[in-house]
Amino acid sequence: MTTTLRSYVRDTWIEGQGDLVPLVNPATEEPLARTGTAGIDFGAALEHARAAGSALREMTFAQRGEVLRAWSKALHSHRDELLGISTANGGNTRGDAKFDVDGAIATLSHYADLGAQLGSLRALRDGDAVQLGRTARYAGIHLWVPRDGVAVHINAFNFPAWGTAEKAAATFLAGMPMISKPATSTALLAFHIAELGVATGAFPRGSFSFVAGSPGDLLDRLGPQDVVAFTGSSQTAAKLREQLGRRGVRLNVEADSLNAAVLGPDVQPGSSTWDLFLADVVRDMTQKAGQKCTAVRRIFVGPQLGAVQEALVERLSAVKVGDPARPEIGMGPVSTADQLRDVRAGIAKLAREARTLVGGDKAVAQKGYFVAPTLLFANDPAAASSVHRDEVFGPVATLCAVPGDSAAAAARLAANLVQRGGGGLVCSVYSDDREFLRDIVLAIAPYHGRIYIGSEKVAGQTLGPGTVLPQLVHGGPGHAGGGEELGGLRGLQLYSQRVAIQGDRALLDVIAPALEQHATSAQR
Amino acid sequence: MTTTLRSYVRDTWIEGQGDLVPLVNPATEEPLARTGTAGIDFGAALEHARAAGSALREMTFAQRGEVLRAWSKALHSHRDELLGISTANGGNTRGDAKFDVDGAIATLSHYADLGAQLGSLRALRDGDAVQLGRTARYAGIHLWVPRDGVAVHINAFNFPAWGTAEKAAATFLAGMPMISKPATSTALLAFHIAELGVATGAFPRGSFSFVAGSPGDLLDRLGPQDVVAFTGSSQTAAKLREQLGRRGVRLNVEADSLNAAVLGPDVQPGSSTWDLFLADVVRDMTQKAGQKCTAVRRIFVGPQLGAVQEALVERLSAVKVGDPARPEIGMGPVSTADQLRDVRAGIAKLAREARTLVGGDKAVAQKGYFVAPTLLFANDPAAASSVHRDEVFGPVATLCAVPGDSAAAAARLAANLVQRGGGGLVCSVYSDDREFLRDIVLAIAPYHGRIYIGSEKVAGQTLGPGTVLPQLVHGGPGHAGGGEELGGLRGLQLYSQRVAIQGDRALLDVIAPALEQHATSAQR
Repeated sequence: MTTTLRSYVRDTWIEGQGDLVPLVNPATEEPLARTGTAGIDFGAALEHARAAGSALREMTFAQRGEVLRAWSKALHSHRDELLGISTANGGNTRGDAKFDVDGAIATLSHYADLGAQLGSLRALRDGDAVQLGRTARYAGIHLWVPRDGVAVHINAFNFPAWGTAEKAAATFLAGMPMISKPATSTALLAFHIAELGVATGAFPRGSFSFVAGSPGDLLDRLGPQDVVAFTGSSQTAAKLREQLGRRGVRLNVEADSLNAAVLGPDVQPGSSTWDLFLADVVRDMTQKAGQKCTAVRRIFVGPQLGAVQEALVERLSAVKVGDPARPEIGMGPVSTADQLRDVRAGIAKLAREARTLVGGDKAVAQKGYFVAPTLLFANDPAAASSVHRDEVFGPVATLCAVPGDSAAAAARLAANLVQRGGGGLVCSVYSDDREFLRDIVLAIAPYHGRIYIGSEKVAGQTLGPGTVLPQLVHGGPGHAGGGEELGGLRGLQLYSQRVAIQGDRALLDVIAPALEQHATSAQR
Repeated sequence: MTTTLRSYVRDTWIEGQGDLVPLVNPATEEPLARTGTAGIDFGAALEHARAAGSALREMTFAQRGEVLRAWSKALHSHRDELLGISTANGGNTRGDAKFDVDGAIATLSHYADLGAQLGSLRALRDGDAVQLGRTARYAGIHLWVPRDGVAVHINAFNFPAWGTAEKAAATFLAGMPMISKPATSTALLAFHIAELGVATGAFPRGSFSFVAGSPGDLLDRLGPQDVVAFTGSSQTAAKLREQLGRRGVRLNVEADSLNAAVLGPDVQPGSSTWDLFLADVVRDMTQKAGQKCTAVRRIFVGPQLGAVQEALVERLSAVKVGDPARPEIGMGPVSTADQLRDVRAGIAKLAREARTLVGGDKAVAQKGYFVAPTLLFANDPAAASSVHRDEVFGPVATLCAVPGDSAAAAARLAANLVQRGGGGLVCSVYSDDREFLRDIVLAIAPYHGRIYIGSEKVAGQTLGPGTVLPQLVHGGPGHAGGGEELGGLRGLQLYSQRVAIQGDRALLDVIAPALEQHATSAQR
């Protein structure tokens, strides 16, 4: 039995016309659903959505937060159903499915909390008022106000639940209407996420639309007050930059990232920092079959190379690959036939400059899009190019040797190699040596949106570098797209205009009240 | 006697080779200087500049601020000389020259103060640390770190002093090396500004370069850690977007802006708000012959239309236009023959949909690039298009009738008309009616980088909407380019990467110390 997905435009659920694209189970290749958007009038859809802006801007942050709260609760009460869909359409183990679905629930809830903290405000002050004239009466403030357009979300196939929710959370709270477009191949879960949201009745009229397939001519209709938040490949991002740049549309990109994990030379085998490093690397290589933009792709190790290689090969070899509907399975397939082809081609490319230690580009099964966890080794990573450039979006990473006689030399060499990725979403560094950490963290900081430090004191508390937290920004410069999402209230900035307002201080307080002092820490 | 300008690259002053471009006095058309950049090795220049980044990052904010302090003082001690050059090469009255030169001195000094306040820090925390784990030990911070590249500044012809200084101030304080390129036609003043800066001996080796003419192939050599800060036309901006977007270079644009002034229906002739409105409009139309990106281009008035028209025509007719070297002159020429041609063509275009009240596109003098202060009138501005789209970069504005029976209707109608500009740098609103102000300010806020409220209480203290203050952000969405500069420490963000760092809180404090609590307000 296959369902037909519907799109939600102009506050109405509609089925696409004409040829529909099939959605399959990547473990069995069986069809699950089909979808299409032919026949949708995107011009009318856009106009309807834009008109919702004024109602959203009238709502307080607390009221906007309530919308997110209702959605989060609705997802939570249908969690098992959503996890099942995630496994069927996404090839996710139950753990992987939780990572996506629970991530959506938690992120919506986090932004609902932020809304509650901001209470009756409608726009956020940025910093304190500054005196501009002879007297305190003449002052200037900075205010983040919602943009007067529509936010279009283009999500990637790997996180249909979390991707939909994290973009929606910041957009709703910022006070912008949105049109959410999931990747078609895994849209079944996003469709149910959207359906549950709409069914809450909490979404203000016109504020949420959902496009279950091609966006037609939607993007060519956008203008300077609109925003596109895109997660996907660098190639598509380049096209969007050109298409939207001409029209003055604000574009946020999360693209390819050659995330690195660096082991400090001080870390001894058997220490808790060592154990954290190994557990993080194996998890971030195999969780969601390595289909995370934050997954580790490059592993930099100095003197402990032999022991690391041995431990990683052992653990990766033990991962059971198969249909994630079976509880004993540790890793499912990649999500689509295209992904399988790309991952196998990517492994072959890496293997031209790095030696395969475990796994490889050979077929794993007759049916389903399976890849074996694959670790390669580059003895001279400075001479490698593909290792630092090509994101192989599967359970694939390259172990790289970092020479260096001293901790300072190791930090410098590792930093240079990490930088070769050209800008990434996250880099993890494992060490308890403060000097080493300071050297390397400051050297790689301009190249990253987030740096994760694994050390003895936090070993029991972290979720690993691959977990994006709503409190911290997610994004990265250069190769990673130059975008920024989340980071608590920072996430609202993409959907806002920062405006300075100067004048009589009493008037400024009428136009844009400030948060009570006791709550200002929530502003950040 | 004409001088030949030099460029400063690789810590050396050099003259360009081959054909040199002449710089003239726009009031007399006499040649003043010449310049060119042929023969400069921009690849080597860039490499040398990039290498200076590490030394700048090692400096504390206080040390970086000292560089700016030295430069500001050097300019101040050569102020009269600089004012003379500004008049000769820029067509500026002494008042206009002060606006540019004193703006440079004050902005450098303001950023020097910010550096002193930040003291021994090297990177700025963004907001407070957040707890991420079960205990307070596991935390996340956000840090603004200097980008690991070069900042290229492309300045406009109208502010050779201030434009050079305001971009340099934020860049130095952020800790990035820079290459400053003035517009060729008025580069004589920028050259002296640069020369005085270099002569202080305060600039760290390689941290400052100056290109007195075409940037050659410099832009094609930039990458994702570099920044280009551009001020100029929308057309050039569009080319840069394409050229630099492909290379992942961060680009900030300040472009055309159809800045509006709105008179509230409550303002009575003869009141101090009324007087402020008239004084601001006349100043912002005629200062620097209207060659300010923040000059008023559209004036929206309701029931007081007749009285406003009469007063503006009277005051604009009284402005003495001529060679700004003569003290009785109130307004000089525009800066170049090209500008004169563009302004006259722009006035003719506006005159097709608006009636000329004073001035016009006729020649004012036989020699020199003079334009008369020109006010047009649009009775039905909703039907106009050029008025809201074409920035005529001279002493030219259009008075627009705003109907509306009530203050609420007037606010709505005026806001719609203001928005027609498609995004601007600044809008000024004159009123003492809180309801009217709240309605219009919130409606136009998403379309602006800055809003100036003129009211009775601040009438004696303001510098007018056309004055960009270092404390407030300067930039605007859409038509205005979507960029952001200044705004105190906000101005450093363009030259920085925001990175989240998560880990043991004690380690975070070692890697990136926070400012002492008592000084945190300076952080914004």
